[in-house]
Amino acid sequence: MIERRIKALRRELKKKRINCLVITKPANVTYVTGFLGGDSWAVVTSRSAYVVTDSRYTEQAQGQCPHCRIIERAGPMEKAVTKLIERLKSVHTVALEKTTSIADFEALRKNIKTRIKPAADIIETLRRCKDSSEIRAIPAAASIAEKALRRTLKQVKAGISENELAGLLDFEIRRLGATHSFDTIVAFGPNASRPHHQPSARKLKKKDTILVDFGAKYKGYCCDITRCFVVGRSTALYKRVFAAVEDAQAAAIRVIKPGVEITRVDAAAREVIKERGLPVYGHGTGHGLGLEIHELPFLKTESKGKLQTGDVVTIEPGIYMPGKLGVRIEDDVLVTETGCRILTRRCPHESLLSAWQS
Amino acid sequence: MIERRIKALRRELKKKRINCLVITKPANVTYVTGFLGGDSWAVVTSRSAYVVTDSRYTEQAQGQCPHCRIIERAGPMEKAVTKLIERLKSVHTVALEKTTSIADFEALRKNIKTRIKPAADIIETLRRCKDSSEIRAIPAAASIAEKALRRTLKQVKAGISENELAGLLDFEIRRLGATHSFDTIVAFGPNASRPHHQPSARKLKKKDTILVDFGAKYKGYCCDITRCFVVGRSTALYKRVFAAVEDAQAAAIRVIKPGVEITRVDAAAREVIKERGLPVYGHGTGHGLGLEIHELPFLKTESKGKLQTGDVVTIEPGIYMPGKLGVRIEDDVLVTETGCRILTRRCPHESLLSAWQS
Repeated sequence: MIERRIKALRRELKKKRINCLVITKPANVTYVTGFLGGDSWAVVTSRSAYVVTDSRYTEQAQGQCPHCRIIERAGPMEKAVTKLIERLKSVHTVALEKTTSIADFEALRKNIKTRIKPAADIIETLRRCKDSSEIRAIPAAASIAEKALRRTLKQVKAGISENELAGLLDFEIRRLGATHSFDTIVAFGPNASRPHHQPSARKLKKKDTILVDFGAKYKGYCCDITRCFVVGRSTALYKRVFAAVEDAQAAAIRVIKPGVEITRVDAAAREVIKERGLPVYGHGTGHGLGLEIHELPFLKTESKGKLQTGDVVTIEPGIYMPGKLGVRIEDDVLVTETGCRILTRRCPHESLLSAWQS
Repeated sequence: MIERRIKALRRELKKKRINCLVITKPANVTYVTGFLGGDSWAVVTSRSAYVVTDSRYTEQAQGQCPHCRIIERAGPMEKAVTKLIERLKSVHTVALEKTTSIADFEALRKNIKTRIKPAADIIETLRRCKDSSEIRAIPAAASIAEKALRRTLKQVKAGISENELAGLLDFEIRRLGATHSFDTIVAFGPNASRPHHQPSARKLKKKDTILVDFGAKYKGYCCDITRCFVVGRSTALYKRVFAAVEDAQAAAIRVIKPGVEITRVDAAAREVIKERGLPVYGHGTGHGLGLEIHELPFLKTESKGKLQTGDVVTIEPGIYMPGKLGVRIEDDVLVTETGCRILTRRCPHESLLSAWQS
């Protein structure tokens, strides 16, 4: 798999007349080398692939990257990479990922004699089309997230705080051998009107609502799920809002197939909410995910381009009424040759509520 | 507090002849504005301070940033910031933090008519000297970490996996109202020879060793602690190594005071290990911490400069023998006018072992 990815990368580099790419973004280093540690860069030329790391990670890199040469640095990263590149023959154009900081770019440019230029989204674009191992990895992460949520819901009772519920969910994810793919969001009642609410000491009441936005990261791959539950009875407003969000999500998923304009998917969800006279969300309708929790493609009103086979994207419309409520429903969807497949379908949804309401 | 920080920043900007700073690093945004959310930039001029955010965070920013004007963007960040800067009068030199990506720098430079240049470490340098609220915040995080570790140790028993132990610790941190300040490291036995080991399914044996490297993040502030424990009896080698690491750490802490060369602190720890004929660690002896888990100053062999009153640094020497063992001890130390104060002294250390061995 790694060999195939390096080959595909080399084809791209050849097209762009780059014969040495310095990879600094952690997810891109993982994609191209298999390395799952931190603080390491990769260098790929037409002949070789290197992981430049330090003594904390040498053992791990040797185990995870059989297709790469491991270079252990003692001093600063830019010095080690400069030394490596100057040793390489026939390298005349070095490219550095555009996500690199200005500071690192300048340090490298100062040191290296060869021409160096920034390059945007080369590996990010390759990463859009998930390969078979990735198409297995994301549902594996989703399966852990689903199990963890199910186990957590059984422990929910009046009086539990947002912090505790988030902590429980993280713990269940951990017990299943994964980590959370981003900071778990748990919002009770009107707190859910802030799409990125941070869990607080707010306690669950007997009649309340729960929004959970969370994900598991397993063997490097993320999933991202949002679910909303009601404790006790839901109000007429909440029911109307919940139904609108469900329908908006279904409308977006219905139009997903290879070749569809991204803006069409985005608009499909927004239209449902607008038609019902409810406030349309200010965030995007979704985003790609895989090694990163947010990656290409981004599904926004101003997005350009089309969906492609192999894209994995979230679909997550929401309705927010400050001081009143917030509802968001989010699933992860794989674009297949004939349409799409929901990878998070088995995650507890409204129907499971009754089990822990009593 | 925020007002004082903005004033201090303005003094620095004036010295550097910058009359508008675009702040992109999350921890710097927090420091200058009080905002604890994500995906937001700040802009500070001689007259005003702005937080540029999106609809997900508007409510939160309004609550957390009484000294700033909140701007809600709908489109891309660089467009919103360009629009803001062009509206401001008398701005002739815009600086952008050097930690910003090349991509963001280029996007901004393309749009803005004013001269724009990168600037390094302006806020990072201000952040070195912790103010009174920060000197309270870090021990508050440490106190949570200590309690969480104590509660976790009570639940340790043969058969528990590294994953479960890490999950338990994270859960206890969460229950106490904080989050982990970085991915918790739990390493049993020889796994501890990898300084940044990722917890695995490896189970704790009846005779084993445990390394835990973890921290709590509370109200934005981090602590960072490493402890090593023995289950059953320790070998003569382990005892010798543990004593050497303890002594190395003590030697480094003993020389800490304002004005001491950073390399002297680093060397003090290494010398103890070298003198005893044991392998000297390849990583730094420590790093600053506060809003970020790693910040200025860095305590490495090649570091320049001196410690200053108000610095908070970790001191974390270690000894690693692949296939055999790993021991690291890490505490957080505040540099005071007369010397230093250990902020993590109350965290369970070797002595607590007996309580859960039986």
